[in-house]
Amino acid sequence: MPPFPSPEPGTDLLLAAAFVSDAQYNRNIPFKTSPEAVRLYRLYNHWVMRRATYFFIFLNLSLALFEEPAVYPLPFLATSVLEVLCLLVFLGRLIHFAKVTLHNVFWKDTKNICIVVAILLSLTDLAVYGVLRLYGVRSIRWSRIVRPVFLINFAESRQIRRAFRSIRNTLPEITYVFLLFMFSLLMFSLMALKLFGERNLQTAEGLPYFRNYLEIVFDLYVLVTTANSPDVMMPAFDFSSWYALFFIAFVIVNTYIFMSLFLAVVYNNYKKHLKNEIRKLAYMKRRKMVEAFNLLKEQEGEQFVVKEAQWKQLVKLVAPDTSSSHRELLLRISDDEQKGFVDKKSFVQLADLLNIQVVTLRIRRHPLARWAPALYGSAPSRLLRGAVRHRAFVWTYDAIILINAIFIALDEESPYISYAEWVFLALYIIEILLKVYTYEPREFFGKTQFWNWFDTLIIFAALTATILNATLQSTMKYNSQQILDIVFILRVLRLIRIVDSIQRFQVIMNTLINIVPTMLTFGGLTLVVYCVFAIIGMELFHGKIQYFPANSNAPHALECGNPALKDSLFARGRYCKNNFNDFASSFIVLMELTVVNQWHDIPCGPAKLYFIAFHIVMVIIIVNIFVSFILEAFFVEYSLEKSEVETAIEQKIQELGMGVQEDELQQEQLLDNMESVEHELEGEGGMKAQSKGLVFKIASKRYRTVDALLQRMFEAEIPLEDEGPSFEEILNLSPSSAVPRSPSSESAA
Amino acid sequence: MPPFPSPEPGTDLLLAAAFVSDAQYNRNIPFKTSPEAVRLYRLYNHWVMRRATYFFIFLNLSLALFEEPAVYPLPFLATSVLEVLCLLVFLGRLIHFAKVTLHNVFWKDTKNICIVVAILLSLTDLAVYGVLRLYGVRSIRWSRIVRPVFLINFAESRQIRRAFRSIRNTLPEITYVFLLFMFSLLMFSLMALKLFGERNLQTAEGLPYFRNYLEIVFDLYVLVTTANSPDVMMPAFDFSSWYALFFIAFVIVNTYIFMSLFLAVVYNNYKKHLKNEIRKLAYMKRRKMVEAFNLLKEQEGEQFVVKEAQWKQLVKLVAPDTSSSHRELLLRISDDEQKGFVDKKSFVQLADLLNIQVVTLRIRRHPLARWAPALYGSAPSRLLRGAVRHRAFVWTYDAIILINAIFIALDEESPYISYAEWVFLALYIIEILLKVYTYEPREFFGKTQFWNWFDTLIIFAALTATILNATLQSTMKYNSQQILDIVFILRVLRLIRIVDSIQRFQVIMNTLINIVPTMLTFGGLTLVVYCVFAIIGMELFHGKIQYFPANSNAPHALECGNPALKDSLFARGRYCKNNFNDFASSFIVLMELTVVNQWHDIPCGPAKLYFIAFHIVMVIIIVNIFVSFILEAFFVEYSLEKSEVETAIEQKIQELGMGVQEDELQQEQLLDNMESVEHELEGEGGMKAQSKGLVFKIASKRYRTVDALLQRMFEAEIPLEDEGPSFEEILNLSPSSAVPRSPSSESAA
Repeated sequence: MPPFPSPEPGTDLLLAAAFVSDAQYNRNIPFKTSPEAVRLYRLYNHWVMRRATYFFIFLNLSLALFEEPAVYPLPFLATSVLEVLCLLVFLGRLIHFAKVTLHNVFWKDTKNICIVVAILLSLTDLAVYGVLRLYGVRSIRWSRIVRPVFLINFAESRQIRRAFRSIRNTLPEITYVFLLFMFSLLMFSLMALKLFGERNLQTAEGLPYFRNYLEIVFDLYVLVTTANSPDVMMPAFDFSSWYALFFIAFVIVNTYIFMSLFLAVVYNNYKKHLKNEIRKLAYMKRRKMVEAFNLLKEQEGEQFVVKEAQWKQLVKLVAPDTSSSHRELLLRISDDEQKGFVDKKSFVQLADLLNIQVVTLRIRRHPLARWAPALYGSAPSRLLRGAVRHRAFVWTYDAIILINAIFIALDEESPYISYAEWVFLALYIIEILLKVYTYEPREFFGKTQFWNWFDTLIIFAALTATILNATLQSTMKYNSQQILDIVFILRVLRLIRIVDSIQRFQVIMNTLINIVPTMLTFGGLTLVVYCVFAIIGMELFHGKIQYFPANSNAPHALECGNPALKDSLFARGRYCKNNFNDFASSFIVLMELTVVNQWHDIPCGPAKLYFIAFHIVMVIIIVNIFVSFILEAFFVEYSLEKSEVETAIEQKIQELGMGVQEDELQQEQLLDNMESVEHELEGEGGMKAQSKGLVFKIASKRYRTVDALLQRMFEAEIPLEDEGPSFEEILNLSPSSAVPRSPSSESAA
Repeated sequence: MPPFPSPEPGTDLLLAAAFVSDAQYNRNIPFKTSPEAVRLYRLYNHWVMRRATYFFIFLNLSLALFEEPAVYPLPFLATSVLEVLCLLVFLGRLIHFAKVTLHNVFWKDTKNICIVVAILLSLTDLAVYGVLRLYGVRSIRWSRIVRPVFLINFAESRQIRRAFRSIRNTLPEITYVFLLFMFSLLMFSLMALKLFGERNLQTAEGLPYFRNYLEIVFDLYVLVTTANSPDVMMPAFDFSSWYALFFIAFVIVNTYIFMSLFLAVVYNNYKKHLKNEIRKLAYMKRRKMVEAFNLLKEQEGEQFVVKEAQWKQLVKLVAPDTSSSHRELLLRISDDEQKGFVDKKSFVQLADLLNIQVVTLRIRRHPLARWAPALYGSAPSRLLRGAVRHRAFVWTYDAIILINAIFIALDEESPYISYAEWVFLALYIIEILLKVYTYEPREFFGKTQFWNWFDTLIIFAALTATILNATLQSTMKYNSQQILDIVFILRVLRLIRIVDSIQRFQVIMNTLINIVPTMLTFGGLTLVVYCVFAIIGMELFHGKIQYFPANSNAPHALECGNPALKDSLFARGRYCKNNFNDFASSFIVLMELTVVNQWHDIPCGPAKLYFIAFHIVMVIIIVNIFVSFILEAFFVEYSLEKSEVETAIEQKIQELGMGVQEDELQQEQLLDNMESVEHELEGEGGMKAQSKGLVFKIASKRYRTVDALLQRMFEAEIPLEDEGPSFEEILNLSPSSAVPRSPSSESAA
């Protein structure tokens, strides 16, 4: 129990807590400072509210699955009620937000205005469509394309907004390169028209070749994406081999040089703006911490400080679920000399301290060592545990995985092979049990033990599915294809673990794992673009192409139900299922367009413009941003691998002797009187802690996001005394003003 | 005439000149220091010798065009005589090189050993092949694939060797990522086998779908290159929409993430090694300059210096074609206080000073102003020149170009349009004449006036071709298609000039123009890879596919002469001309493979391995290096655009008042007594020069190569006093040892 009484916290404390919490999570909302508003603001930021908002955003987006043209049709009434519900939730959230922010700030913020406009548009459209429907008139639900606005503009999706801001900032430069690229394309098309237009050449399909200027432009644009190479070249090449030079020049200039130039421009801007954003965040954090300090400061001798009791209450408010020993550690770091107060310089670090995931380890005996010490400590048990800890244990299982891979590749028909599957499953389960027997279970399933979790989940899912399948098979003589598919996939996934045994692969895997959180941002970005294009695509092309199962007797089954497609490459390639007839199909078509191939086999005119627009948005801009992001992530990861920066907290943990290396944990000599109940540690905190078997560990460096890494790099550059510019100045920082003081994140290798 | 007698230069001077010259051109040959060797070394570096070597390297490579299977067949005797000639030249060059370098150094250098081995192999193979041929036995000319060795290993092609070194250094890291990528590919293939193998699905061509593991691996590898998307997905997708998820996951992981990772690894290593190489070059240059200084130094008071006379002789030897006034300028910079000698610190800068292209301008009257001053100075003439200088003149011609573009796009048939062509041609010629009338002709056609040269060449080529065509047409009633084609292309190229009128485009164009020299390196690299693969491809696939012109009656004309291709996508797409039947066709096929599309429509087995090998080498490694290079070039260009570094020489020119801005040149007030014969300027040099109308100008910053820019950046970081490590140490510098002192070339934006 806490040693000091916990009074109802004062407004200053609440306000300070709101500042610190904002600083900790890099939130940027100018809230009112009245007690009421601060309380509302804390509610606004509550995780339940945030999750609920996300839920309704995705519900709203997924409505497209149930509206006509639908994958799973629902009556119009049902979807419209759901949509109104979503809109009401958004409105409520917005009103809540309006209550906590200043009036003039609220209406100056474009994202709020966007939401209001989107809600009004959606409601209007819904009403108009409903009324028209009552009178039997079919109109277009055009407001559906504004739905992604909610995903972009709600304050929760800061990352997606940042990505959009980055795109907006890159647009002017991209535009210049794009104009030059278009100029080059038009020039080459003009040459092609002059060279081939009068030759009466024919394509492989017997169509006229390069007669019409606009068609040439389109064909050459497609060639830039390499999708129609070498078809577009063949007629001219057949006519004279020298004409190949024209196409080679075209490909070098447009496909190689210009496309690389796009990547260069996008990457350069991405890097520039990313650094600017992160600088803003760092300054904003500093400024908020100073505000919080000013609220709580008391005079102590010459300087202003925050008293220990105040400080502890603040930390409790900001991070209610930290353990008291963790809090004690933070205090020891902030109040280095144990003077009973925290000075300004240490105080502003609090947000960072809270952000560092400190794992409080209690080195404890294995549960079995407590319950059956004699058995667990016996010689065979020790031998077994020694064997599991030995490297040969890992190697054995690597070998088993390899043999397993061969068995999977073999034919399933033979009964011996399917028995072997049971053997492998048993071996994997034994491995997990042995490991749990050897290592402390709570340690084994720690938050950062990615591969342990991965293994266990895969194996148990496979076990469940296999048993389920066997049961179904023996009792009902029925083979569920879905379950079998899942079993197959799980079996193969099991093999992935072998990658983690090789040191060099770990580095690459870490990069890949660190990329995942920000990949979700790109997922959001892609979702927005896909939604908009899918909805437009459905309106434009719905029903143009039909899919008939093989052996269908429907008329024009081979031409996808469209006589115009007779003998087209589209029908011949059996692409009929690539259509815009429902939301899911549209997504898959757009995915194929993103991959860029065969997208030119589309017959009709407006489709071409649609596809070019999609290509420009998705491939030239978003895929390049994605590549830039991976490049940057790799470089950051790579430069950190060499010179890992140690922060104050890590040093402090080491100093206090409370640190522990991961491998030390696996040694048993630390396992003496380690088990202890949670303990209040006052005053001399840390040292006592260690004697109680309490050990802190910085959460593994392997699982940090690129954003956090970059931010830390930049913060190291701001001197601790620097309060940074004012809020207004921070918001107006531009990348160019960043130049003189921003860090060079590349270790200049 | 030079004011001092030019005695036969001493050995020390020659040796020093060799050092300075090596430093100037970044050559790195440890030559012997005997008088004989130094003389031979100067001969070795003579431009005629170097050009000749290049000529024979390319002759040797182009022999493949004339050897069977040949584009232009020559008898075996002719090609073998040519080859022996080439080999003898290479041998001679190598012996020459051996004479100038130290014996043990020569045999330690792998490139020399490579050349020797390549010559021996080629001769042996040639002899064996010739003898077997005499007895009527046909064997394989396998030594042809060693021919690119000469291109790589002759000292002249330093850039290409550097690129190869960079590839070699990148290989280990690439290999790890590649193994992980292959692992992922094999895993996905295993899943695909399990999921789809038993379903009896069929592809659009009615072939079995995903039955055989190796075929699945190949199909999915092709999907990574996106070439068979969406065909490879359609059968599974038609069976169940959910299976699309498998392919989406595959594309995200392998096409997007892994391919970006390849780029990241290649780019990261490229950057790292590039910086190391450039650091080596900079140190090497410094060291050589110190050696040269030590040879020539004489005591002068407390310090060692080089006397003015010695210095001048040295410069004359190193750069015989600099004007004496240029030499005077360099002396003024090196001997700042005109003490009659150059100290060490200034001396080591000489190589850089020589490298800076200083254009010696003599501001002179327009020739017409001399020959017909009354006419040229008359009011109408002044008005005309004023008009040409006016911005409206540029705008007018931009408008004319646009109108011209429309006319080109219009149909040629109408006689008015073809008359219009003459009008436009006349307008362009008038423009050039007016400009030459207004600006001084030698200034107008200066070395750095890229666009003036471009314009003039294009216009006069078009004029010549058009007249030639008209003559042929009217006299012989014959329309030469080749000439017409050239006329068409020239007409369109003319339009490019409009790009240079827009400031923003100029920046991008500069980047593109600066990239050209290093693009030639990549051209060399590509040539090497293409040659090797083309020669192997010809041996493997020669004659497998035949091309028949349309309407041919040959059997199997529609199946490319190969019955196995009946009904294949290859024959249906009329790809018959894409074959390995001769060197040129092979190159075009390899180009298509580089672009990556449709390359999977190849029937036979060994071809698959060949194509995968080519894809790995060309697309994964070389194209990524190319993209890295463009990215780096763009970033360097971009960071320099902001903060251009001024070097000592530029400041000096300004200080001496000899500098001139480009726009100043166009003002007439400087045109007083400006014309002067070349003059020896002693002692007070520069100042007198100006009064004589002599003006120096640093060659435009627009046309510098990326290499030079990077090198300059790095050199700015080495303190002037630093002599750098010894030669041996320099050669062993590794990128990691570079870290502490290398510059961060990014302006941290």
